[in-house]
Amino acid sequence: MIWEAQNALLGIAQRTPLEAAPKIRENLYIKAENLQLTGAFKLRGAYNKIRSLSPEEAAKGVIACSAGNHAQGIALSATKLGIKSIICMPAGAPISKVEATKNYGAEVVLVPGVYDDAAREAARLSEEHGYTFAHPFNDPYVIAGQGTIGLEILEQLPDVEQVVVPIGGGGLISGIAFAIKSLKPACRVIGVQAATVASMYESRKAGEVTTVNDGDTIADGIHVLTPGELTFELCQKYVDDIVTVSEDEICAAMLALMEGQKTVSEGAGATTVAACMFGKVDTSSKKTACVVSGGNVDVTTLSRVITKGLVKSGRLADISARVLDKPGSLIQLLQVVSESGANIVSINHVRDDEHADVNTCIVSMVLETRDITHVRQIKQALRDKGYSFVN
Amino acid sequence: MIWEAQNALLGIAQRTPLEAAPKIRENLYIKAENLQLTGAFKLRGAYNKIRSLSPEEAAKGVIACSAGNHAQGIALSATKLGIKSIICMPAGAPISKVEATKNYGAEVVLVPGVYDDAAREAARLSEEHGYTFAHPFNDPYVIAGQGTIGLEILEQLPDVEQVVVPIGGGGLISGIAFAIKSLKPACRVIGVQAATVASMYESRKAGEVTTVNDGDTIADGIHVLTPGELTFELCQKYVDDIVTVSEDEICAAMLALMEGQKTVSEGAGATTVAACMFGKVDTSSKKTACVVSGGNVDVTTLSRVITKGLVKSGRLADISARVLDKPGSLIQLLQVVSESGANIVSINHVRDDEHADVNTCIVSMVLETRDITHVRQIKQALRDKGYSFVN
Repeated sequence: MIWEAQNALLGIAQRTPLEAAPKIRENLYIKAENLQLTGAFKLRGAYNKIRSLSPEEAAKGVIACSAGNHAQGIALSATKLGIKSIICMPAGAPISKVEATKNYGAEVVLVPGVYDDAAREAARLSEEHGYTFAHPFNDPYVIAGQGTIGLEILEQLPDVEQVVVPIGGGGLISGIAFAIKSLKPACRVIGVQAATVASMYESRKAGEVTTVNDGDTIADGIHVLTPGELTFELCQKYVDDIVTVSEDEICAAMLALMEGQKTVSEGAGATTVAACMFGKVDTSSKKTACVVSGGNVDVTTLSRVITKGLVKSGRLADISARVLDKPGSLIQLLQVVSESGANIVSINHVRDDEHADVNTCIVSMVLETRDITHVRQIKQALRDKGYSFVN
Repeated sequence: MIWEAQNALLGIAQRTPLEAAPKIRENLYIKAENLQLTGAFKLRGAYNKIRSLSPEEAAKGVIACSAGNHAQGIALSATKLGIKSIICMPAGAPISKVEATKNYGAEVVLVPGVYDDAAREAARLSEEHGYTFAHPFNDPYVIAGQGTIGLEILEQLPDVEQVVVPIGGGGLISGIAFAIKSLKPACRVIGVQAATVASMYESRKAGEVTTVNDGDTIADGIHVLTPGELTFELCQKYVDDIVTVSEDEICAAMLALMEGQKTVSEGAGATTVAACMFGKVDTSSKKTACVVSGGNVDVTTLSRVITKGLVKSGRLADISARVLDKPGSLIQLLQVVSESGANIVSINHVRDDEHADVNTCIVSMVLETRDITHVRQIKQALRDKGYSFVN
């Protein structure tokens, strides 16, 4: 079924590059689905689903509920197949997503309320007009479509020993794991979730499909509270391990991809690289392919990620020190910083801070530093000179 | 000579991808030298230069002066050839560049002062120790190395009609233009410079090598005040036209590459795309390959670029309004903003601002907006409620 999907996707989905990423980690390879058309892997499953519709179903059209990559995948696929598509989105969806989906040829219905309201409206419209509802992950055709990524990885890196895949609802990893385990059972398949929304991870622990409490994550592409029944079963059968990564780790990975690979990934896409960077997946002796599932990240988010990632890797340090409120104090402090080899990004010198005594000021500095060791050295040098810190 | 270079570079430099960029412009293709090893095309010329050294020269080593891509190209090339390399940099060079160059195996000499001081020190060391000085652009071997990009473009896109190339000292375009015009004379070759440092553009106008006044540009990779004699001659002979782009245009192109192509380019690399986006190069009927020469941009710079690009396209608005200094004033203001559909990014409420009267405060807001029309609507809505603006 995955072979069939691969054949069907020829000339539709891109065969995305698999690139070595030695600057991030030895043995690390990136399967760049962020370079897929629509900027994410979703096109594969969506197209494979829609092409499987009967002529009667096709004549009526498809409907989906999504403000993200699934929406664009469905819209483009339906348009390529000459089929009508309707996408329900919550009314607060980012304008850029609405526009992108419209540009791929879909009719967008903005539904007042949140995601669940949009989903209900999609179900209602589907019922009323006979549109086929395209589920984002819990569907064998969708899963088979995503599985083509597994086939490509095996073709592009035949001696791969480990494949790391983000998990939201589980459609992507189900397809890839099935493909990999069918053709190369010795190759490990590892799933990654955001620690704040680890629904498949918790379901695995519980031994059954489990709904987790909602949490915040930058990885909106895998922000799913309940995995699918079908995808859960496939994960139980074919996935060796599931790990989680923190928000800071995801940011650091996004930054590493920008700097080391010159490539833009969304939060969900970078989770796999984060898992390898922060020891959740051991890459020391295994050729490891990380699926970077998409690149559709808001650029405003990206600029916040850069700052967070720099701080996390010790290349930007935020230090607030107490100094005596008398002429020359600031110069003395800066002398120590300068000797340490750090560059000053910004300085804020305040007198009436809650942490300041009557005769001290607080100097908050943002410094460009080499790494975490360097930050420690600077703080130690300041301590040696008698400075104390607020943070 | 370029064929020879291409042969020599096999297995050393990457054959970088040439990708269609339909989301930016129709007919536009990107030659992604930002994905080259070391993150820039410089490796090609540097390696081709160093491999041409005599055994005696090779035994002594090479020296270069650069805090940028040339440094890394020389360092990696020399290391690959088992030759010693020394790189002089001004002492204030960014830590990241120093580290990267050291990691490629070079010995880095930090010279107090600015670039010219470092260049003088490199010349002195070259004299003293017999190191071969590797010029960044005015050298036939370097030019031939860069020219291999021209060969690759013709192989990857045989029906290319236009090639657009950034110009700093002129080494890159000299090599590419020579290759293209030798093999496909009908294909146009167009150079792009930053408007603030347009030395080859001015030299062409003057009919002789000209030094321009120093200017600021985000495109540090092409920040060259005097083009080479050799490269100037080759440009006169083989380059059809030279155009310039503004700083805002470069930022917008960097943003378009991130959003549309999911790829990170440095300022110099994005100039070619900027030229096509802003009508300096007509792509309406010609298959156009833009050389994106490098991707080594400081991520801190990147986050400033994002902000600039968003403001330029009306997707971020910075509004400072005067409000009465009494309880509830801020809520009233926010009510108006909220009704307009803009998202608040940040709020700064200050009482002792130079623009504030005794009984008013200044509220500075950064808002996420849809486009320039949306920004105008919000300002009008605020004006209708009696608010006035500082900016």
